[in-house]
Amino acid sequence: MSDKTLAIIATKGTLDWAYPPFILASTAAALGYRTQIFFTFYGLQLLKKNLNLKVSSLGNPGMPMPMSMDKWFPTVLQALPGMESIMTAMMKSKMRKKGIATVETLRDTCIEAEVKLIACQMTVDLFDMETNTLLNGIDYAGAASFFEFAGESDVNLFI
Amino acid sequence: MSDKTLAIIATKGTLDWAYPPFILASTAAALGYRTQIFFTFYGLQLLKKNLNLKVSSLGNPGMPMPMSMDKWFPTVLQALPGMESIMTAMMKSKMRKKGIATVETLRDTCIEAEVKLIACQMTVDLFDMETNTLLNGIDYAGAASFFEFAGESDVNLFI
Amino acid sequence: MSDKTLAIIATKGTLDWAYPPFILASTAAALGYRTQIFFTFYGLQLLKKNLNLKVSSLGNPGMPMPMSMDKWFPTVLQALPGMESIMTAMMKSKMRKKGIATVETLRDTCIEAEVKLIACQMTVDLFDMETNTLLNGIDYAGAASFFEFAGESDVNLFI
Repeated sequence: MSDKTLAIIATKGTLDWAYPPFILASTAAALGYRTQIFFTFYGLQLLKKNLNLKVSSLGNPGMPMPMSMDKWFPTVLQALPGMESIMTAMMKSKMRKKGIATVETLRDTCIEAEVKLIACQMTVDLFDMETNTLLNGIDYAGAASFFEFAGESDVNLFI
Repeated sequence: MSDKTLAIIATKGTLDWAYPPFILASTAAALGYRTQIFFTFYGLQLLKKNLNLKVSSLGNPGMPMPMSMDKWFPTVLQALPGMESIMTAMMKSKMRKKGIATVETLRDTCIEAEVKLIACQMTVDLFDMETNTLLNGIDYAGAASFFEFAGESDVNLFI
Repeated sequence: MSDKTLAIIATKGTLDWAYPPFILASTAAALGYRTQIFFTFYGLQLLKKNLNLKVSSLGNPGMPMPMSMDKWFPTVLQALPGMESIMTAMMKSKMRKKGIATVETLRDTCIEAEVKLIACQMTVDLFDMETNTLLNGIDYAGAASFFEFAGESDVNLFI
């Protein structure tokens, strides 16, 4: 087992960008890394009890999933109302067929592996988020607290 | 005070993504970190004397601010001319009401705290940017110079 | 020459976001860094033998290139069919005029400099990618393998 440490800042709140922090954190934790995720900006969405994440259908810095969607839906169609929901449903179905855990399950895995989840207090205030809509048992802190841990960490990732 | 170091690469040029580099850098500097930000690609926009940053209204890898905007403006409406300006004004107003410093103020705080700001020379050339439109007193250098500092830094973040 | 190490996770698959991992990796390698890039999520596109990358015309977390494109094409026009191809062609032409290497050339430079390229096996499976469409001679591994290298690296970047 490793005695290393990993600090992640999770800043994005779409379904596709929810996977990297939870996959990387749970993998590192399984390897024995002490791991923290600091959720800030749009990333605070990932701490909601009831996740309602959507694929960002337009202008994704990458390409929509599944890969073949590009051919099916030209950009102009992707702007139609309801398209985000369709693409989100397709992505979830794709993940399920491939046996990839849901974001909820990956998040639970992180919690079981004692990954420390911290909500950025400033963003909570900015977005008027009600803390009872967020997971129980998480910490609330500022950016200074992130550096306390990150400054001593072997790996730091801004996601 | 810490004797640690932080190296940031700032690559994005929208209003929402202007906050993370300046908030993180000013926080770290306040904690005593020697801090550098290397501005490259779209991030070079953050060095302009007159900032004219807009929220990227479509396909933001997160969700538009304020959070409730999703309900007000379905994706197809967000593509209408003028919508970016409306959303940008809404975000600025939200920030102001919540007492969060403007990007300009956060940037000034970084400069006062002696955060070193470096413009990527290659990107300046690529975009034909006139250096008199950028802040006075910044450095111009290449990616190799970023590694000189980052290779010795405790925390490295690609934003 | 440095004896340092750089670990990059490349997660984005558009033309504009293809530059940072290859430019940073080739620069670091030229400075003597042992360098690895772990390609995952949309970033796996960057390992295709035949790159067919496009600028993401809408909602780019930054701004479209060339910079002046914003004025020429308001957001609503950018959603029209064919616009992505036009913007991609403009960006490629701009890069060529400025003497900036193509993504293919930068990638070759990385390979010649012995930057280790690793495809995320889980993403390959998820996207049903045929490995014969990807570069020969690359490695396939999971996230745990990324941490083996990153945990010992001087610089870690999530791009």
